[in-house]
Amino acid sequence: MDRQNETKELIASSFKYLVCNKPIDKISITDIMNQANFRRQTFYDHFDDKYDLVTWIFLYEITELTRSSFHWENWEQMLFLLLNYLEKNKKYYKKLFLNVKLDSFKDYFTYTIKQGVQHLADEYFEQNNQINEQVEMTEVTINFYAYGLSQLLHEWVLGGCLPPSDAYHKLLTQVIHNSSHF
Amino acid sequence: MDRQNETKELIASSFKYLVCNKPIDKISITDIMNQANFRRQTFYDHFDDKYDLVTWIFLYEITELTRSSFHWENWEQMLFLLLNYLEKNKKYYKKLFLNVKLDSFKDYFTYTIKQGVQHLADEYFEQNNQINEQVEMTEVTINFYAYGLSQLLHEWVLGGCLPPSDAYHKLLTQVIHNSSHF
Repeated sequence: MDRQNETKELIASSFKYLVCNKPIDKISITDIMNQANFRRQTFYDHFDDKYDLVTWIFLYEITELTRSSFHWENWEQMLFLLLNYLEKNKKYYKKLFLNVKLDSFKDYFTYTIKQGVQHLADEYFEQNNQINEQVEMTEVTINFYAYGLSQLLHEWVLGGCLPPSDAYHKLLTQVIHNSSHF
Repeated sequence: MDRQNETKELIASSFKYLVCNKPIDKISITDIMNQANFRRQTFYDHFDDKYDLVTWIFLYEITELTRSSFHWENWEQMLFLLLNYLEKNKKYYKKLFLNVKLDSFKDYFTYTIKQGVQHLADEYFEQNNQINEQVEMTEVTINFYAYGLSQLLHEWVLGGCLPPSDAYHKLLTQVIHNSSHF
């Protein structure tokens, strides 16, 4: 881990701690940096604002988590890791999704999941030496799956991650298997 | 058509006309009622506020449109009617989706589509004399489809309804056929 990411991780972990313990709108940049034992200015050396921080946390943490398994054939495992991650951070993500000022985080969440599905679909076509002749159709299909999935995950987090991740993973993979022709 | 709905329809049509011709936030209740040739108070005899009006318009108009075909086996035709309706009203719905104050209309849009899909699924199980034994699984499946579909429609409207409704209908039904095991 490079030095820059180390600092970012410490800021992230302080922020996540604070979110679980007080209302997001009451958390100032000074609070975050006090908690992390850094000067206030250091925050702005790494992030533009709170929104920049929350999007970095999500992308960085799920990228770290799924790095070694990010391949088409592992999609079930990746989904499990994602569910597990959200469950472990359920208090944090629930508060994030409910915060009006960070409202567009939901769009970022959907966008990130869409990028992931897109990446897996590209890899699938490449691995199978298939030229994707139905570009428009594939795009609509990817969006359909990504939107369905991310909205389901959003609701699951708002509902307190019930049923638990292992049971929900079984349900979701079944729904996707039933609907997938890849 | 009863008298009450007649008045509501006139108010709705004035509002839709105004939305296509000036920014939504500049449209007052007085403007709407002047356009409809009614007293301002009459608005409040029928609607609570603008949000109440826009949700009524959407539900009323698509219900009228799909009333005679609202059956499981006609889902393709119903989807076509919905796409066609959104296309005909694309300027109105694009402005609605982009208006920050009416932000939660998107949730209402999704909710309405989910109710429709739920209704069709219930009818399917009833018609086939099947007892739905996998309640949880069915619920997740319905949500998955409804969320995927409504987010796609939302984007389609924001993109100016391109490709046109007939081409997009072909694409969407293909995606749903490929993914449907009902």
